[in-house]
Order: sequence, then C-alpha cells, then structure tokens
Amino acid sequence: MQTEFIVLNEERNVTLTAYLQPVGGEFAALSHRPAVLIIPGGGYHFCSEREADPVAFPYLKAGYHAFILRYSLNEQAVWPNPLNDYEQAMALIRQNADKWHVVSDRIAVIGFSAGGHLAACAATMSVHRPNAAILGNPVFDGDCAHDYLPSAPDVPSAVDGQTCPCFVFATRTDNLVPVQNAVHLINALCAWDIAFESHIYANGPHGLTTGDPSVAYQNCSGHYAQWVEDSIAWLRDVLGGMDAQGLTPPRFGATINGNREKTLNLDCTLRHLMRHPQAKALLDESVKGWEKGAPSAATGVITLRDSLRYSGLDEKAIWELEKRLLTIENTLEE
Amino acid sequence: MQTEFIVLNEERNVTLTAYLQPVGGEFAALSHRPAVLIIPGGGYHFCSEREADPVAFPYLKAGYHAFILRYSLNEQAVWPNPLNDYEQAMALIRQNADKWHVVSDRIAVIGFSAGGHLAACAATMSVHRPNAAILGNPVFDGDCAHDYLPSAPDVPSAVDGQTCPCFVFATRTDNLVPVQNAVHLINALCAWDIAFESHIYANGPHGLTTGDPSVAYQNCSGHYAQWVEDSIAWLRDVLGGMDAQGLTPPRFGATINGNREKTLNLDCTLRHLMRHPQAKALLDESVKGWEKGAPSAATGVITLRDSLRYSGLDEKAIWELEKRLLTIENTLEE
Amino acid sequence: MQTEFIVLNEERNVTLTAYLQPVGGEFAALSHRPAVLIIPGGGYHFCSEREADPVAFPYLKAGYHAFILRYSLNEQAVWPNPLNDYEQAMALIRQNADKWHVVSDRIAVIGFSAGGHLAACAATMSVHRPNAAILGNPVFDGDCAHDYLPSAPDVPSAVDGQTCPCFVFATRTDNLVPVQNAVHLINALCAWDIAFESHIYANGPHGLTTGDPSVAYQNCSGHYAQWVEDSIAWLRDVLGGMDAQGLTPPRFGATINGNREKTLNLDCTLRHLMRHPQAKALLDESVKGWEKGAPSAATGVITLRDSLRYSGLDEKAIWELEKRLLTIENTLEE
Amino acid sequence: MQTEFIVLNEERNVTLTAYLQPVGGEFAALSHRPAVLIIPGGGYHFCSEREADPVAFPYLKAGYHAFILRYSLNEQAVWPNPLNDYEQAMALIRQNADKWHVVSDRIAVIGFSAGGHLAACAATMSVHRPNAAILGNPVFDGDCAHDYLPSAPDVPSAVDGQTCPCFVFATRTDNLVPVQNAVHLINALCAWDIAFESHIYANGPHGLTTGDPSVAYQNCSGHYAQWVEDSIAWLRDVLGGMDAQGLTPPRFGATINGNREKTLNLDCTLRHLMRHPQAKALLDESVKGWEKGAPSAATGVITLRDSLRYSGLDEKAIWELEKRLLTIENTLEE
Repeated sequence: MQTEFIVLNEERNVTLTAYLQPVGGEFAALSHRPAVLIIPGGGYHFCSEREADPVAFPYLKAGYHAFILRYSLNEQAVWPNPLNDYEQAMALIRQNADKWHVVSDRIAVIGFSAGGHLAACAATMSVHRPNAAILGNPVFDGDCAHDYLPSAPDVPSAVDGQTCPCFVFATRTDNLVPVQNAVHLINALCAWDIAFESHIYANGPHGLTTGDPSVAYQNCSGHYAQWVEDSIAWLRDVLGGMDAQGLTPPRFGATINGNREKTLNLDCTLRHLMRHPQAKALLDESVKGWEKGAPSAATGVITLRDSLRYSGLDEKAIWELEKRLLTIENTLEE
Repeated sequence: MQTEFIVLNEERNVTLTAYLQPVGGEFAALSHRPAVLIIPGGGYHFCSEREADPVAFPYLKAGYHAFILRYSLNEQAVWPNPLNDYEQAMALIRQNADKWHVVSDRIAVIGFSAGGHLAACAATMSVHRPNAAILGNPVFDGDCAHDYLPSAPDVPSAVDGQTCPCFVFATRTDNLVPVQNAVHLINALCAWDIAFESHIYANGPHGLTTGDPSVAYQNCSGHYAQWVEDSIAWLRDVLGGMDAQGLTPPRFGATINGNREKTLNLDCTLRHLMRHPQAKALLDESVKGWEKGAPSAATGVITLRDSLRYSGLDEKAIWELEKRLLTIENTLEE
Repeated sequence: MQTEFIVLNEERNVTLTAYLQPVGGEFAALSHRPAVLIIPGGGYHFCSEREADPVAFPYLKAGYHAFILRYSLNEQAVWPNPLNDYEQAMALIRQNADKWHVVSDRIAVIGFSAGGHLAACAATMSVHRPNAAILGNPVFDGDCAHDYLPSAPDVPSAVDGQTCPCFVFATRTDNLVPVQNAVHLINALCAWDIAFESHIYANGPHGLTTGDPSVAYQNCSGHYAQWVEDSIAWLRDVLGGMDAQGLTPPRFGATINGNREKTLNLDCTLRHLMRHPQAKALLDESVKGWEKGAPSAATGVITLRDSLRYSGLDEKAIWELEKRLLTIENTLEE
Repeated sequence: MQTEFIVLNEERNVTLTAYLQPVGGEFAALSHRPAVLIIPGGGYHFCSEREADPVAFPYLKAGYHAFILRYSLNEQAVWPNPLNDYEQAMALIRQNADKWHVVSDRIAVIGFSAGGHLAACAATMSVHRPNAAILGNPVFDGDCAHDYLPSAPDVPSAVDGQTCPCFVFATRTDNLVPVQNAVHLINALCAWDIAFESHIYANGPHGLTTGDPSVAYQNCSGHYAQWVEDSIAWLRDVLGGMDAQGLTPPRFGATINGNREKTLNLDCTLRHLMRHPQAKALLDESVKGWEKGAPSAATGVITLRDSLRYSGLDEKAIWELEKRLLTIENTLEE
C-alpha cells in the first residue's frame, strides 16, 4: 500500500491523505479500483481520528482505495469553505485517476456527524458530485447544523434530481444530533425518487463510528456495527464491485418505475399513465381483460408491466403496446 | 412443542394457531415465555402461507411461543372486522397466559403487507395493545390501504403516546407498496417520540418475507434477510429476552430525553428547560461556567445532564440542582 | 405445518415426530422438500428436549421437513437397538417420501453427544444410510461411548467408502466429551477421502445445542452459534438446496482429486500417475515443458490438470492426453 | 496511522513494514495496543501481496497494530534463515514496544501457506515465541514442506508445552496443500493440551486469503470468509481485546482441566486422580454418595469439581478436600 499526504490548503490546514492499493501483478484483473473519500466529523471544530483511519480499513479490505479529507474548521469553516475543500479534493482525485488507478465514476463519500453534513452537501450541492454517499449519524437540518456552524446550509431542501444514491444510518437515541436529521433526508430522497438505503438502529449515543469495540462505546444496539458490511454490500449493488475477474457491474438500477423517463414506457405506473389522455386512450383500446382482474385493486403504484400479467395480452401484443407508448413524450411531472 | 388450533370466528373463518414450547424441566429457568403473534399479508384477499409458519420458525428458535392469526378477508374484512379479530386473539392469549405459559406483557405482533397494516392498527388503535410491533413492507397510508380495502384506516395519523415500540423494515424498490408507507410511519413515530428501529433495504420487490432462499425471490439486497435476526436482537433490547437464568430485563429505556416526564429533570434538553422561566432562572443562578463551554454550540438537543460536564459543578451541586428541578411541574409540551 | 407423531416401538418407547411443511400452492416450485432427522443426545439415558425442537426450527426456516427420533434408552439401549431404531425411522421416511413430500436422497441426520454417536453410526454402519450427517459435540470413540453405553461401537474405525459427507463441530474445552472424539473422526474421514466440514470452537462446555441464549449456557466462544447457519450453507453446497425455482443442484463434488476413479484422468495427482508405469510413460512422452516449470515444486498433490498450465500444451493436446488416460484402468490404491 | 519500513537484512532482502495506530488523545484509554505480525505465503518462492496488506486491514479495523514480514526466499531460504528472519522481527517489535506502543505480550503471528509454515515454526520452535498464532491453509508436514523448501522442518512433531494458542483454518478440497497438514497439527495440539480453534471449510482451492471478493476466487464455501471475524473474536477471548475502557482481559483460560498443574486440584479429572493412590484414598474416604450418582457413567474425563455436584458434600467439605488435594504433588504424567 502506498500512502500519500497532500496539503490542499496550507492557510486553512486542509489536507488529503491517500491510501492507494496495488493494481496489476497479483491483482491482474484490476487496472483501476473504486475509491472512498472519508470525511470525519467533529462539529466543524475538529476532525475526529476515530472517524478517519478506522473507517478506511474495512473499505481497504474490500478492495477500495481510501482517501481522508481534513477540512476547514472553526473560524475558517465559514461556508462555503468546507464545500470548496471537498470540491478541491474530489477534483484532484479525478484528475489523478490514471496515476492513482482510481475508477473515476465509482467514488463514494463517507461522512459522519458534521462530516456527514459536508458529505451530504457534496451529494446535493457540489460541482464534482460523488457517485454514492454513506452518511452516518449525520447533521442535515439547517437548524441543527447552525448549532455547530451558523453559516452551514440545510441539506434536505437541497436534494435534487442529480443527487447520488445515499446510504443513511443513525441511532434513534442519538441525543446530540436528533434522528430527525436522517428522517428528513429520507423524506427528501423519497420525494425526488433518489436511490437510497437506510438503517436507523434503536439504541446508541452519538459518535459510534464503525461500532468496533476498540473505537466505540458499548451501550448500543448489538447489531449497530453491521452498517459497515451493509454499506459495502450496498456499494457493490449500486456502483458495482470487484472480483477475481475485475470490476463487476451494478446489480440494480436506481429507479423504482419509469415515471421519470423521457417517454412513456411499460415501467410507468398505471396511475401515471392514466393521467395522460393519449396513454389512457391507448390502454382503454388495448387492454380489455382488466375489468375483473387484479390491478384494479392497486392502480396506484403498480406498473403497467406488472399489471399486464392479468390482461390476457400475449407477448407480441405487449410489445406493440410498448412501441406505441415509447412514442409518447412524458410531459407529466411525477 | 404443543400445537393448538382455535376457531375464533366460524362465520368469518378467523383462526388462531398456537405453537407452544415447553417450560420447566430442562428449561427450569423459564416458567413462562414471551410470544409473537404473526399476522400474514395478502391484500386482505388471502392470508399468505409464505408469511405464516416460515416467519414463526426463527422466533421459535429464539425461545418465543408463536401464534398465527388468520383474519377476516374480502367482503368480510369490512373495517373494523380485522381489528376485532386481532383484539379477540390478543385477549385470548392474555387470558390464557398462565395455561399457555406466556409472559403477558412481552407479546409482539409481526405483520407483513396488509398484515402489517393490521399489526400497525393493533399498535396504534387497539384496546389490547401489543408490547412491540414488527412491521414488514407494510401498508400504512390510507391512500394505499384503500386500494386493497376501502374501509381501512390510515395508520400514521393514528400514532399516539400509547403506541408500542416499532421495528419497521421495507425495500425501497417495492413497486406494490411504496416505501413512503414506511417513511410516513417513521415520521409519526419521531413526532410522538415512540421508540423504533427501521431498516430500509435498497433493492427488492414486495413480499420477500424472511428472505430465506426457500421462500423468497432472489433479486434483492443480499443483506435483506438480516431483518430477522435484527428484529430478535431488538426485541431482546426493548422487551427483554431469555437466557439460562430465565427472563432477562430490557437493555434500554424508550425515551431519548426527559422532556415528557411529569416534572423537569436532568435528562430534559437545555432548549426545553430554557423555555420554562422557573428552570431558566434556576440554571442562570446555579451554572456559571457555561459561558466559555461546549453546550453553547448545541443548546438545541443536548440534555442538561450531558452539558453539566462542562459546568464546573461538582456531584453534590448537581444533585441539589436535580432535586430542585424535580419539584417543578413539566407544563410545557414538547 | 402438519405435525405427525408415530410410535415406532411401543415396548422400547421409540417414537418419530414429523414436522411437515406444505408443498405446491404458494410453494409451487417445490413438489418435495429435503429433510433433516434429528437425534437428540442424553448419554443414552434420556433424550434432551434442548436438542430436539430447538434444533428443528432453523432447518424448518430453511425449508426442510424436520423429523425427531426418540430412541431406546438405558437398559433398552443395548446395541444394536438404537441403530435399529434409526434404521426403522429412515426406512419409514423413505417409504413415505411421496406421501410426505420428501426428497428421499436429500435427508440429513443431525445428532448431538450420544445422539451424535448414533447419527455417526447411521452414517457409517447403517443399511439405510443418510445423505449427510451433522454431528455436534459428539461421542465417537469406543472408549468414551462405553462410559455411557458399554455395548456402543467405536465410530472412527467404522468409516468406510460409503460414509456420507459429515459436518462435525465441537468445543475444545468440552470436559464431558473430549474434543479428541471429533478429531479422531476427522482423521478417519481424511483417510477415506470422505467430504467433510469441521468447526472446533475454542471455548465452551458440553451441551450448547444451537447456542441460542434461550437454550444455551453463555460461557462459550461468541461465534459458536454460527454452526447452525454454516451447517445449512454446507447442506446447500453438498446436497443442493431450495430457491424460488425449486430444488437447486449441489454446488460442489465430494472428491479432492481423481485418484479414486475407475480409470486414470486429468484430476489425478501427479504422484498417483507417476506411480503407474503406463501413465508415466505417457506423460514423459507428452509433456516436455515441465523441466523448468512450477509442478516440480509440488509433485506430491498437484493434479495433472493444474500442472498442465505450465506444460506448454494447447487445449487440443490436453484433450488427446485425457482421452488416452481414460483408457488406463486405475489399478493403484490411493 | 504511521507507516514504517525497516530493512531487517539487506543481503537476503528481508523487510518489516509497520502500520502503527495512534494511542492517547481520542484513544485515551489505550496507551499501548496489541499487534499482529503477518507472514504472507508463496511457497518460499515469493511473498504474496494478496496475503499481506489485505490481511492487515481487518486487524487494523479491530484496533491492532499490524506488521508484515517479508522473509528470505528461494536459495536464501535455506533453513533456519526464514526462522531467523522471524526471530529478528519479533525481537525488534518487543524491543520497540514502548516507542511503538505495542502490548508486548499480546502479539499474534498470522501466516498463510508457506507463511503458515513459518508462523507455526515461530509458535513451536522460536526463542521469541508469539502469544498466539493464526494459521491459514498452512503447510505443516515435513513431507509437504519439502516440496517447497527441502530444508524446512516438520511442525506437528515440534509442538511442545510452550506452544502458543493456535487458530487453524483450511479448506478440505485444497489440492495444493492437503488438509491433512491442518489435521496433523490439530492432533499434536490435542496431545499437548494446547488451546486451539479450528475451522475446516468443505470447499475451496488453495490461496483464498481473506475470502473477500476483491482478492479471492469465488468457488468456495460461502461462509469461508468468516474465519477473519472468528479469528478476531478468538484473539479477544484468548489474549484479551480492547474497548472504550482500554485493554480487556482474556475471557477464558487455556487448560481443559487441572491435570497438568503442579499439585492435584479440584479441576483434575477423576481418572487422573484415581491413578494416584494418595488421592484415591482421600476420595474414597471423603465421598460416600457417588455409588448411585452420575459420575460413574463418565469417570473418564469429568473433573472432580463437576462430579462433586452429585456427592452430597457441602461447600465447606469440598473446600477441605481441595486444601488437602493441593498438598499432593502431581507426579503423574497426563
């Protein structure tokens, strides 16, 4: 493993530490590796060592390069300085993707507490967006963030269609950063149909980091520490992973249905299609067998593809229907 | 293991199946066992076998008695018939607690899909409340429930201060019951400060039940099946469990802070106390050292107990302060 | 789930309990299920309830039918009575395979302590051999077995080529049944090249059964309870399992190399082939590139197939070699 | 994390890499940390990178310092050069224990394949013995080791009473290093009553290292990768671990019974005591109630302490017996 230490901003004491793993040779199938960029917490007052190296190790074990960003603190943290620190770090990593053997579109940020705030700002507001974000006991709400940094922006209201997939975890009894921070982000991710995973553990104080006994307090839900392995499995599903043959593709797409595609399609929900007169007419004409069928029970969210199982249409008729739907512009907002 | 099969309502075909484990003898430390009451899903149109026995087995392994409720369906499911079925079942279990060796205040409901709706109604609306509720890919929203049963009530708006602790899990890409159902309940549980745990897995269709390969579809997040063991660990934490010495106590209390107690106390948040003139005056008088201390950074949610670490007060002074707070009625709503 | 209770031998109080799961309907892909036959321990003096139902539950969860054999005890346990009880039970299960929907060549025995002795006798001495055996803190050695039942046979010396695959687990500090019992069986399984898996946990007393807190003592290696899930994964690998499409095939074959096949083959080890003059001549003639290659370093156990990677032979030449080897009878004992 | 790179022997190209974690500060409870010394495999022909850093990461996550020894290879590996390399490395670590903040009596070696041979030689033959040894798909047998290094010694025959606790894992179908290597060591550890844990997974080729998909081949038992977490749990049990309060004590002692203590004692087995005339007389005199009790069934291995439960003796009488036993020298070999 090669270690690099880069000063990004001498005046503000901003640094980037890189743990770079070998490629080629005994790892012949890998010419580049995906990476994580870890952003420790500390209330914008310090960068916690408990949320730096100890977090890097499991992702290194899983084959990722690991970077750690130590960003502007205290009076130097006036917004948008911390976000600019992130932008500079991510831009540098992508510029050096070939030299450092990084897969430049498989870079996840991982942030905790105030670092979770910064990582979530990266996911929602930055120019150099990460490809996934893992956010632990995070500060998201403007109200809560202002307790630590008066100039810090609110995150849930900043979620947009370009927000990357998010993995959010917290403990409900965190009595420093209320669990509502996590819940408000989940609400926003739902509203924007952004892919996410979320684990809210029943019990535990703030700052449990990996949950390993060597670094964490013990008085928490015993399965808290699973977030680490779960987040690695999630990254593998959402961005693709690595195996003996090299990089693996993502296992799942991000969208729940086709309601946000440019044209109508079989994966739109019935409710979405029925609001569109041209599609409604097409379906009324094409599908006769629904009157006594299942979809009437759940016209809300079932997709056309799923409901057609009850339509009596054969494969070819469905294909015809699909072709005609794909010619109709999807003008309706979800 | 002793199996009982009880017809609760012949006309509506409502039944209760009981799997009762031995007590005493080789299980000398246990005179009674906690129990789960399983409510399978099926859109109020059928009761899924995939969500009945296969769900009972892991809780049986963990030492629980298991009951399965098969409730009113289709035209017989007009509300409140299903809820009445639940009431009848839970009342019967508690009446027979001695005969069946059930710990009558350690009974959890477990429901899936439409059964999750009924289990959540039990948790929020019933007379015979369960002591905990485990709710899988559940229908909660009135809008969604009406697709299956027009007379079904909305759950999130029914959450109250007597709602039992809840464990909510779902997959984000469930395209039959949208994940918003789960998220809306979590919002309501937060608002009422009800203890909960929540796992939203990124990927998977509706109806994954235990996630065991023998019973589930495979195209889901690989760690989906962890909800089973996590829910058992959560029950052990929230209700207490069993070991070689008998029943174990709960590991954690349910409240995040003391803001809902009858009198003010050390576990109230600073924000809550500061809104109360008498407490504010008391704190202004007692605590001098805060001006340069940490709590100013987070007066929102930090408790008085935590913030007093920075106050310079010694143990005895804190005790004096506590005694005076406990004399002040907590008249402010949270 | 359907429960049956069958008296196998009234005089000796031998019974078989059957927990039979549904097939067809919502489990359409399954017309039959694999099964486990559980043999509790108790020193041939009693049948422990702690090693009966609690062991059945995880295999039921995994989709298996579960049977529990309660066999001859005390003065009625004079050998071969217990083995005859087993024979009767297994014969009955296989005779009723269609009625009970059992896959008759996917039946594993699971035994603990003295029940592990009986299960291992089933695996090595019976007429109606099981298809796999899971053996927990087992009594295998004649010396040790005689402490409990003077007429009990020694197991390791009975291992033969027809012994089924075995999963053996124990704790090293078992101070009732010494861990050597497990180790001696492993030695015998190695000698006969029988497929096996083995987990010897560092710490724990005798009789931990599933390791679940509700049924076990706590003072053992914290990962002891993993044997349960590991044994289910192992069954899936060695016998095949179940998924939404029905039965799955075994993932692995049982043999380490081809040394016991009827003819010579590419999977024989080099050492085995070199002992056979006809094969040695063939290899000397066919393979020129080995002189400077890797296999010289490990001619002991490397297979011809693996070593040919260093031979310079192309695919077609290897195929020619294979065809000629397959004509040579494997006359040498391993 | 601080990285150091030390050349131990320039001529033989022997190096030690150190990954040193911080102590004090945010890790206030830890002034020193336990450590692992990793010895990669490679048939004494190379040092595999797949068995170096990727193995260090999980132990770093668990709070350990990690060292990696790259030792003498090929013609420079003539015995005892590699063992001398180990001696030099371990001596250096212990000499620098204060500077590097290492708990000098909590240092485990971890070796794979040929590195497992060297680690096992360290455990059995070295002057600077490690405190625990984790040995993966290891070469132990002289026969097998000679394939790689003709001068390499046999390990099982070198086990002695000073051998440290061992954690041995392998796959049964390893067709490069036969599983018998692991089994022969286990036999020797049993014979010498050395504490050990062992996991032999049913399926998998040689060289699976941590089992992480990024570094391993996939065609192995799915639970193979558990050895990593199991070995960390085992280290915590056998050497003690770390938590928020600092170092934790070992959870378990190493001996199964008291048969190797200097004097007789309550934890000796009955069989051991009965072979000693003075103890036999004492027991015959003290214990009357055994005639109809349980221990007669298993006098082989049950300890006196366990069997006295059936003796009718009260606590004080047992204490008297203990005091008298402790005066008798334990002259009998086990």
